[in-house]
Amino acid sequence: MKWFVGVDIGGTTIKLAFVTLEGDIVTKWEIPTNKVDGGKHITSDIAKAIESKRVELGATNDALVAMGLGAPGFINMATGFIYHAVNIGWKNFALKDELEKETGLSVTVDNDANIAALGEMWRGAGDEAKNLLCVTLGTGVGGGIIVNGQILHGVNGMAGEIGHLTSITDESGASCNCGKTGCLETVASATGIARLAIEGLKKQPNSNLQTVFEREGTLTAKDVFDAAKEEDELAKSIIEDVCFHLGLALANLANALNPEIIVLGGGVSKAGDLLLNPLKEQFKRFALPRVEEGCKFKVATLGNDAGVIGGAWLAKQG
Amino acid sequence: MKWFVGVDIGGTTIKLAFVTLEGDIVTKWEIPTNKVDGGKHITSDIAKAIESKRVELGATNDALVAMGLGAPGFINMATGFIYHAVNIGWKNFALKDELEKETGLSVTVDNDANIAALGEMWRGAGDEAKNLLCVTLGTGVGGGIIVNGQILHGVNGMAGEIGHLTSITDESGASCNCGKTGCLETVASATGIARLAIEGLKKQPNSNLQTVFEREGTLTAKDVFDAAKEEDELAKSIIEDVCFHLGLALANLANALNPEIIVLGGGVSKAGDLLLNPLKEQFKRFALPRVEEGCKFKVATLGNDAGVIGGAWLAKQG
Repeated sequence: MKWFVGVDIGGTTIKLAFVTLEGDIVTKWEIPTNKVDGGKHITSDIAKAIESKRVELGATNDALVAMGLGAPGFINMATGFIYHAVNIGWKNFALKDELEKETGLSVTVDNDANIAALGEMWRGAGDEAKNLLCVTLGTGVGGGIIVNGQILHGVNGMAGEIGHLTSITDESGASCNCGKTGCLETVASATGIARLAIEGLKKQPNSNLQTVFEREGTLTAKDVFDAAKEEDELAKSIIEDVCFHLGLALANLANALNPEIIVLGGGVSKAGDLLLNPLKEQFKRFALPRVEEGCKFKVATLGNDAGVIGGAWLAKQG
Repeated sequence: MKWFVGVDIGGTTIKLAFVTLEGDIVTKWEIPTNKVDGGKHITSDIAKAIESKRVELGATNDALVAMGLGAPGFINMATGFIYHAVNIGWKNFALKDELEKETGLSVTVDNDANIAALGEMWRGAGDEAKNLLCVTLGTGVGGGIIVNGQILHGVNGMAGEIGHLTSITDESGASCNCGKTGCLETVASATGIARLAIEGLKKQPNSNLQTVFEREGTLTAKDVFDAAKEEDELAKSIIEDVCFHLGLALANLANALNPEIIVLGGGVSKAGDLLLNPLKEQFKRFALPRVEEGCKFKVATLGNDAGVIGGAWLAKQG
């Protein structure tokens, strides 16, 4: 019995798993994220959770080989030091050192979007391809870029911020949480798609989405895809628009990075072909022919397990 | 005496150099590119040129350690096999194997834009930074992306095609040699800038560029920068436009790659601050604050030597 420990720290829960050397989950579970006292109890919570799970499974002390962990916020990946993680409460927190002290395991830290990308590369849609673009279309738009099998960090850990490529440069671009306007995230996230729909109703109040909006008081990205399935014109034009911006951004990145696979994850990716077909069309329009030929689109397959499996991959690399 | 051999094959001349283990050029020279018989004499030309130079310098047989070489066209970097190099004449040519046979040296092959980027990283403007974006603004727009000290190839050798990011998506985009329209290259290359100026004269015939155009029968990018220096409105608006598109493309790439340095080379980069100042302004507008803070712009310093020095770097890596 030799297992890696994969950990994925979120603002509400911490996901944990014991993972075999080949990347199969032995067991997975969650604990709440304890944010009191600036998050300083989190490391001992994780250590206790791991220890009691190990005992529960009857595994020996040396069954656990190493730990890989993803966390949100600004992280120094080399030292595992967290400068700031707003939705946890950490500020200047030596996460790696603390965890190593508490668990006795060697710990590798990266950000949450990156370990999800590594998980998909290793055991998900990435299919062990070594040049991979992972894009999460959720509340925001997150990204992880894998080059030669390694996650890209860049000079100060900011690499992979695909959601903040600028899609709309004129004054019509919506404000983004990052402080800029017109970011891809303002258009291609679930939030962005819902916003476009609500704005679109002003001009096309005869859309079926109007009924949903009046009933629910709001709209979701899923409402838009559902309406598009029924040939609603407004919904179809919004998806067209989203795929134009997303396809252009991904083609531009692909012309630079020449990835083998683009993995789409997050809630919006569940729309499947309703998203993928128009997206591939726009991608083909803007990518160089050889780049387009070399690149497949896939929907993420690991769901919420991507992070803990990617954490195990990190642990494997040491 | 231990030297690397750096070779940079172009459509007209082949540049060669003996380079110390530290990257200093011992001697450099050129030979013509012999394109007869589909370029099949080039490898023996290179071998003879190296051998006679070695003898001329009185160096022993084992002074030459290894060779690194850049060539244009579609290359399999792992095997040094050239699928097709239009302006040389090679088709399915085993460049690395042939050269190793002819010279007895171990040979590493990459494309010409990439070895120039490696040269700038090692001994030029890149200053040994390990995360680097190199952009050559010449007749076309070329690129080389260096990540963790390694040149990015992507899944089929197409990585770094920065000139083919799409800048103009509507029907106003000019045709590009790649078959697409509106590529960055159609705007930010020397050719693109000249085209914008000639088109601009139709609407602003009172520009000083009109006089130059009538005298010379054409315009160059240098004419545009010269006129901008004298506050010509058309010239200034073209540079504004070029910097908007180039700044947006580079900021989008930087949000994904988080480079430490962006090196600008090629004829257009000689405009210096006239280009750099408006470019940095647009870059700042579209890059995430931490990405912009982490990134410096520099003008390439090695000129035509970048390729042979980058070749030597390749040889050093083996």
